[in-house]
Amino acid sequence: MARLEKHLADLSIRGLELTDPSQLTRMARALMTTEHEKPAAFDEAKLSAIVDLYIRTGIQVHSPGYMGRQFSGVVPLSSVIDFVSSVVNQPSSFYEAGQLPNVVERIMADELNRFIGYRPGTFDMVTTSGGSLANLTALLTARNRAFPGVWARGGSELDGPARPAVAVGADVHYSVARAAGILGIGEDRIVRLPLDAARRIDVSRVGPALDAAERQGLDVFCLVASAGTTSVGAFDPLGELAAVTRERGLWLHVDGAHGASLLVSDELRHKLRGVDQADSLAWDAHKMMFVPAPCTLLFYRNREHSREAFRQTASYVFDAQPGVHTALDSGDKNFECTKRPMMMTLWVLWAMYGRALFAEKIEYLCRLTRVAHAILEKQDDFETLHRPEANIMCFRYRPKWLADDEVAQFQVDIRNRIKQDGQFFISKVDVDGVAALRVVMMNHQITIEHFQMLLGEIRKAGREK
Amino acid sequence: MARLEKHLADLSIRGLELTDPSQLTRMARALMTTEHEKPAAFDEAKLSAIVDLYIRTGIQVHSPGYMGRQFSGVVPLSSVIDFVSSVVNQPSSFYEAGQLPNVVERIMADELNRFIGYRPGTFDMVTTSGGSLANLTALLTARNRAFPGVWARGGSELDGPARPAVAVGADVHYSVARAAGILGIGEDRIVRLPLDAARRIDVSRVGPALDAAERQGLDVFCLVASAGTTSVGAFDPLGELAAVTRERGLWLHVDGAHGASLLVSDELRHKLRGVDQADSLAWDAHKMMFVPAPCTLLFYRNREHSREAFRQTASYVFDAQPGVHTALDSGDKNFECTKRPMMMTLWVLWAMYGRALFAEKIEYLCRLTRVAHAILEKQDDFETLHRPEANIMCFRYRPKWLADDEVAQFQVDIRNRIKQDGQFFISKVDVDGVAALRVVMMNHQITIEHFQMLLGEIRKAGREK
Repeated sequence: MARLEKHLADLSIRGLELTDPSQLTRMARALMTTEHEKPAAFDEAKLSAIVDLYIRTGIQVHSPGYMGRQFSGVVPLSSVIDFVSSVVNQPSSFYEAGQLPNVVERIMADELNRFIGYRPGTFDMVTTSGGSLANLTALLTARNRAFPGVWARGGSELDGPARPAVAVGADVHYSVARAAGILGIGEDRIVRLPLDAARRIDVSRVGPALDAAERQGLDVFCLVASAGTTSVGAFDPLGELAAVTRERGLWLHVDGAHGASLLVSDELRHKLRGVDQADSLAWDAHKMMFVPAPCTLLFYRNREHSREAFRQTASYVFDAQPGVHTALDSGDKNFECTKRPMMMTLWVLWAMYGRALFAEKIEYLCRLTRVAHAILEKQDDFETLHRPEANIMCFRYRPKWLADDEVAQFQVDIRNRIKQDGQFFISKVDVDGVAALRVVMMNHQITIEHFQMLLGEIRKAGREK
Repeated sequence: MARLEKHLADLSIRGLELTDPSQLTRMARALMTTEHEKPAAFDEAKLSAIVDLYIRTGIQVHSPGYMGRQFSGVVPLSSVIDFVSSVVNQPSSFYEAGQLPNVVERIMADELNRFIGYRPGTFDMVTTSGGSLANLTALLTARNRAFPGVWARGGSELDGPARPAVAVGADVHYSVARAAGILGIGEDRIVRLPLDAARRIDVSRVGPALDAAERQGLDVFCLVASAGTTSVGAFDPLGELAAVTRERGLWLHVDGAHGASLLVSDELRHKLRGVDQADSLAWDAHKMMFVPAPCTLLFYRNREHSREAFRQTASYVFDAQPGVHTALDSGDKNFECTKRPMMMTLWVLWAMYGRALFAEKIEYLCRLTRVAHAILEKQDDFETLHRPEANIMCFRYRPKWLADDEVAQFQVDIRNRIKQDGQFFISKVDVDGVAALRVVMMNHQITIEHFQMLLGEIRKAGREK
């Protein structure tokens, strides 16, 4: 406990201390008991050493040097309630096993829907283990509705010559193309829609792209928009896209894994304007709601649709005659059978502190990123790539002396050097096929001074290259 | 903390205290702040009330009255390390983000494989969020190998007239048929293999069943065996089945979600004889290894196969050129992108106490179940249905005066009455289409006296009916 407190209080600037796996394996093995015939006695010193090693060798989400990924520095209280969840071990797919987790899922669905805007009482929400699974669940639902025979008889018996296809923004998360591979749609049946200069789906080119897909024999049944792309944090124009999908009878899924949390801010909600017209919305609370991973919410505009992803009976889990209790069961609506009561962490923060805790943190992080962008714009040796809409920003370091054909490899080298130096942790991403540096502001303890220091480190790394 | 200690020390016999959802919703809502403009102050009394309500309304996995499900009463130390995981929030799909979790995954793979028996250095293991996902991952791998074109081009372009199909034991877990629905194989393409008197797959009838399926135009590419069925805990004859699948070129997947843990016991390992010949094995450590859910392991006999479930590139997560660090990444081998470092809990118990902790608990629980069965055999008013192979037992209460056509409904009524009385928590399951009572011994604090008390409660419930 004392070790964790110290860890949380430590605001030093730390990147990543990368250890060789074989060396770390030896260190971990050295901490293991060699007794196998009877249980060894509890050894407090050993446990302390394990906790130390665990804290030290991980990504430092609580340090201001951490700007590299979308993993969140959690609000400590959420970890406390997560600890309770660990001990009581109530699975949340079934009301009778975990009553409070099931009830607070309904409460949080209503609370958060105030910002989405679905009609109260007619929508649904399920929790699942991560955004990739939420996207997969939504696409499965859309597939089952568009091709009702596939669930029972398989994809090989699809009637007609048209091949099922899914349209996505070119920057969509990898889990969507993967879902097409998994669901028997085919990864090649992904229709990538062109982006505008801000890397959002270009609505004016959606119609022609869908027409072209149709001429190629594709039967597009679903369009996936992003509310916050992973690479640059761009928000697709949901309202305009909804007009297109409604007219063409397509399912509109919004991958809001990263950006849906902006809904709780009065200042930033407009980025998701039109989300109330989406058929489904994936929302990772373990990103911008600052709870331990995973805690993912999948909303459906139409409550009936949530039961169409899976169609099953199993006597030991599903009651044939739903009653007042089993009506809250979610085992038939998500991939998991045993599921962690993940909503407890988010609900407790929401119950104790209210919406303002989240809105303030999110607004701070987005503001910080805009200020960082304004700073970069004034630097001769940095190239900005987009105006950040949220807390993600991509850019390149391009000192004058750098040849054009060296730009891409230079960013990769810089990123690796920064990582090795161990003060900051940033990521790299390809933008238009060329490597770029990327910061994600996930920790309210980061200030603009830390970002200035990072620029200094980048310049130093560039000189030493 | 004090509340959790008290909860763990409380050995009173408690079933389920089932609250009406609308009432519980009011209670939960009453604990929520009404402040929305700025974060409310931390309120310790409110947190205490939440923890109390959470503990009280859940399934009582730590009470000897709990015999109803496969959810585990966890070893408390595993919750402590899970708490650390919550705070440090290291995702385990990528080595650089969670170095120790990734290293201990490799260590535990080697430790546990000593009991499986795959050739060291040639097998692989991934973690995932529950047994249903592990089964789905294994079937996806098998599908991709048998029908290489489906991933890219979808199921509608399968060549030839044969329809992909999966053979399973008739008592297989519902997630397997569901997987066929998800993967575009089709739930109707499940070939249910007949069982013997002990409810294991009847090997002598597998060949004819597969031949019959082939004559019906089905292309069976995978056989799923259970090592521990959910309903009665039966272990399919893995060695004999492997001989069949090898001869016919089928993938053999073993759903050992419940029973694979018996491998760590010298006394019980023989139940899984032949598992070293399986192509894949799903193993839920959150069941009989007594760690918080989820903690699921999926083993592949052939290391190369673990990369065939998903085939992807994404510049911000997958490095094109794997190095010494990224070689340990698992993001391209499991459904999750952000994944909880679930192996930490199991490794810490294993590192601190050694194998004996698990072996002793598992052996006690299986012995307890055998003794309970022997007791039931001597009762005139109870009907046994199988000789328990593990810690699951199904039976029926059939007092002399009960008419044959009332037996099924009577079991359901008994189970509900027991649940309402709140002392014991047992489950019901259909065996051969007729409802039966079911106990699962997941808590080493259950003694045979508790089981005797349960029989008394059942008789009382029957009289009061």
